[in-house]
Amino acid sequence: MEALNEFRELVKKAKAYIYALQLIGWDSNTEAPRGSFPRRAEMVGILSSELFKLQTGQRTVEVINELFEQKDALEPLVQREIKKAKKDLDKIIKIPENEFVEYQKLLQLSQSSWEEAKEKSDFSLFKDDLVKIVEYNRKFVSYYGIDDEPYNILLDDYEEGMTMKEFDQFFDVLRTDLVPFVKEVLSAKKKENDDFMTAFFNKEGQQKFCDYLIDVMAFDRSRGVMKKSVHPFTWNTSPDDVRFTTRYLENLMFSSIFAAIHELGHATYEQQISREFDDTLLNSGTSMGIHESQSRFYENVIGRSKAFWETHYPKLQSIFKEELKDVSLEDFYRAANKVEASFIRVEADELTYALHIMMRYTIEKKLFSGEIEVEQLPQLWNKMSEEYLGITPTNDAEGVLQDVHWSAGLLGYFPTYALGSAYAAQFYNTMKKELDIDNLVRNNKISEINAWLKEKIHKYGASKSPKELLLEVTNEEFNPKYYVEYLKEKYTEIFLK
Amino acid sequence: MEALNEFRELVKKAKAYIYALQLIGWDSNTEAPRGSFPRRAEMVGILSSELFKLQTGQRTVEVINELFEQKDALEPLVQREIKKAKKDLDKIIKIPENEFVEYQKLLQLSQSSWEEAKEKSDFSLFKDDLVKIVEYNRKFVSYYGIDDEPYNILLDDYEEGMTMKEFDQFFDVLRTDLVPFVKEVLSAKKKENDDFMTAFFNKEGQQKFCDYLIDVMAFDRSRGVMKKSVHPFTWNTSPDDVRFTTRYLENLMFSSIFAAIHELGHATYEQQISREFDDTLLNSGTSMGIHESQSRFYENVIGRSKAFWETHYPKLQSIFKEELKDVSLEDFYRAANKVEASFIRVEADELTYALHIMMRYTIEKKLFSGEIEVEQLPQLWNKMSEEYLGITPTNDAEGVLQDVHWSAGLLGYFPTYALGSAYAAQFYNTMKKELDIDNLVRNNKISEINAWLKEKIHKYGASKSPKELLLEVTNEEFNPKYYVEYLKEKYTEIFLK
Repeated sequence: MEALNEFRELVKKAKAYIYALQLIGWDSNTEAPRGSFPRRAEMVGILSSELFKLQTGQRTVEVINELFEQKDALEPLVQREIKKAKKDLDKIIKIPENEFVEYQKLLQLSQSSWEEAKEKSDFSLFKDDLVKIVEYNRKFVSYYGIDDEPYNILLDDYEEGMTMKEFDQFFDVLRTDLVPFVKEVLSAKKKENDDFMTAFFNKEGQQKFCDYLIDVMAFDRSRGVMKKSVHPFTWNTSPDDVRFTTRYLENLMFSSIFAAIHELGHATYEQQISREFDDTLLNSGTSMGIHESQSRFYENVIGRSKAFWETHYPKLQSIFKEELKDVSLEDFYRAANKVEASFIRVEADELTYALHIMMRYTIEKKLFSGEIEVEQLPQLWNKMSEEYLGITPTNDAEGVLQDVHWSAGLLGYFPTYALGSAYAAQFYNTMKKELDIDNLVRNNKISEINAWLKEKIHKYGASKSPKELLLEVTNEEFNPKYYVEYLKEKYTEIFLK
Repeated sequence: MEALNEFRELVKKAKAYIYALQLIGWDSNTEAPRGSFPRRAEMVGILSSELFKLQTGQRTVEVINELFEQKDALEPLVQREIKKAKKDLDKIIKIPENEFVEYQKLLQLSQSSWEEAKEKSDFSLFKDDLVKIVEYNRKFVSYYGIDDEPYNILLDDYEEGMTMKEFDQFFDVLRTDLVPFVKEVLSAKKKENDDFMTAFFNKEGQQKFCDYLIDVMAFDRSRGVMKKSVHPFTWNTSPDDVRFTTRYLENLMFSSIFAAIHELGHATYEQQISREFDDTLLNSGTSMGIHESQSRFYENVIGRSKAFWETHYPKLQSIFKEELKDVSLEDFYRAANKVEASFIRVEADELTYALHIMMRYTIEKKLFSGEIEVEQLPQLWNKMSEEYLGITPTNDAEGVLQDVHWSAGLLGYFPTYALGSAYAAQFYNTMKKELDIDNLVRNNKISEINAWLKEKIHKYGASKSPKELLLEVTNEEFNPKYYVEYLKEKYTEIFLK
């Protein structure tokens, strides 16, 4: 088929531009010198504009439309790919080019205004840009001409098929079943030997242990790289080139360890995607929620388990002999699972984490229903923080300004974080029927867990939707009860017995 | 002028592609995982082909030709730029596209065949590819239709305006004046306390010292990066992004130190080029020879001077207390300047280095005059090694196969290495009349040496030809006597007194 060949060529060419742009991004976030940024911005501008021309060019539009019309004659995988391409194209070509360009520029500026606002803890410095970002998103969504609530359209960008209705049900379950339990755990706290959590652990030792974790998690070094950056992230262009970062805070040793395990979860997903998708639009994780399920599973279910630390705590102790000599395995394990109401989402523990997300989801929902406006955010934030976590931020930096997402135009993204944790618990419920997970962890056979994940989830890339995947792996639609059960069981065992 | 604006746009767009391709190269040479290479090759293929289309497209050809015809009406700098563009274009468009593509593919393959041949020390594994590379170069040169000897045309690619006639004169001076002196130094060797040169020095300490050298050489960290790679190199996209690498061999500590200083010489040149050339074709060093003069000046004239080690040896000793406790400053200085006939060019000392280059130049000259063919190279190499250095390689790996250049199609490049050292001596002769170099080195004021280099050489980028630059800075045309004098004075002082 002529059009399909042409489509393949276009996709491949676009991938080359994306590869270049991604690498520039990786470089910027890990090592490019500060002084190079203005020049880099110009170069990125030119390359992005070439890519935009390619992706929205007349011939591209014709080819995608032609294939979309004949989609029933295509193989299922190609059909899914064409639908995906058509969906993205329909959105992007409905935005007037000048508004698209203006919005991109705004996002460059808002990055700096947010940084400054956060540094000075002054929401007013970021407010005007955020007003514009929300305005653009409301406008863009209206251009699409999709007959749905604006916030639903945004939610679907990050988690295919998820709507407010489903998220509301999910968060209602958490509100009803989890929030009282969290309060119980918080009030049951006893004296712990956990001062070491904020003691000094040098970077070199932390790096050594993170490097050790690469092999523990059976990550393929010949197709991957670990590096450091200010904010940990995973980066990939194909299963043969998957990189991740962690960060080393010398007074927060857990930060590097759990960031590394978390990112290794994302990275292993990407490494295990089938090569057959290399030249298609299906060669990456299928959604933010499924991706987060893999990183959270690694970080929390495996990385904070007793079996894991029984196996690997001796190694950590051998690196930090002095620092850990008075910290027993039990102390260490309890500290790794410490529950505490805190302001900052990225530092939150496994149990209170979802509460941070619920706040953000509720706020975004109200923003897009028009119930509130941007200027009310700081007050609303503080009020909800008191309501959900029982604490009130003392300033905007530890409140409404803490996350980068809104300044980057990521609206509708947050709920996938909590969803990912819940997906992870549901996958885990299935996995533990088929694998003796603790035993594999204890015997350094995480490669067998990876093999299960590959077979059930990873290899499919984006060829299955999140809902299909969940149903096929667990024989059930999304069900948050597994998440609540998992948390209750684990934290009862640790802190309520 | 319409055409000039269009030319600027084309140059800028080409620069964006080159930026992306360069960054991919930097990444490949410093950290990309091995497994990512096949995919990367595909992506590079697509981006290179887009760039090729841009650089040889009909409109590009028209614009450059139009500007070239009207060149007398252009400002001198623009005139130089257009002449440069026209010269490159005339070459590239005369090569049939299929032959160009075939040659690029050959260079990919020859890279591997050379690596394998070197590893197995068997020239026959690389011979056929080298025959083809030489054949292509002979053919391409004939396509250009330039009325000159083939090898002269290649020489001019790397060193504008230099011909066999001039190189012959240069090497004749070395043969007459330097070779007997080298023999004298070699035979005057006495017992040195230099076993530490091959003793163990851990990477961490070496890295710490190289990092210290960045500040010693007053390199601007906000516009630069130091990293490690198998073969040290310098990389730049603009004065605001200049990076270099060194390598850490735990049993050859000098290797990392002098590679770092050498690359810092290249890198400082690139950092100090005037911003006015950013969007032009003149925004890089003017020739391989001038570039090498800067790195050799840093490495040998400054980096191996007594003043330098009087100032910085205590720092190195503080890092390697045990390892250097019995090595006096004098021992260290003599070792840093140790003279020895050796097989490997990249490990050769300052004094014998030029002999390695003379061999290669003579061989390349004979190849392009048709006096010899590729299959005779190993025998010729060994014969010349005996003649120039008094030693015969025991195998091809330490002989004819040692350098990567020929496998990468770099023919006519080698002589610029020796030329660079000679340029450096000529520049140095002028500089020392104007600056008290030793005093600046001793007082940690290398920034003042850099300021001189910027004003006299660096800031001009490629806006002046090497010959213009040399004449304007030193008030004299190229004169190899300064090189011979510099070497004789320095090595007489160290080893013949």
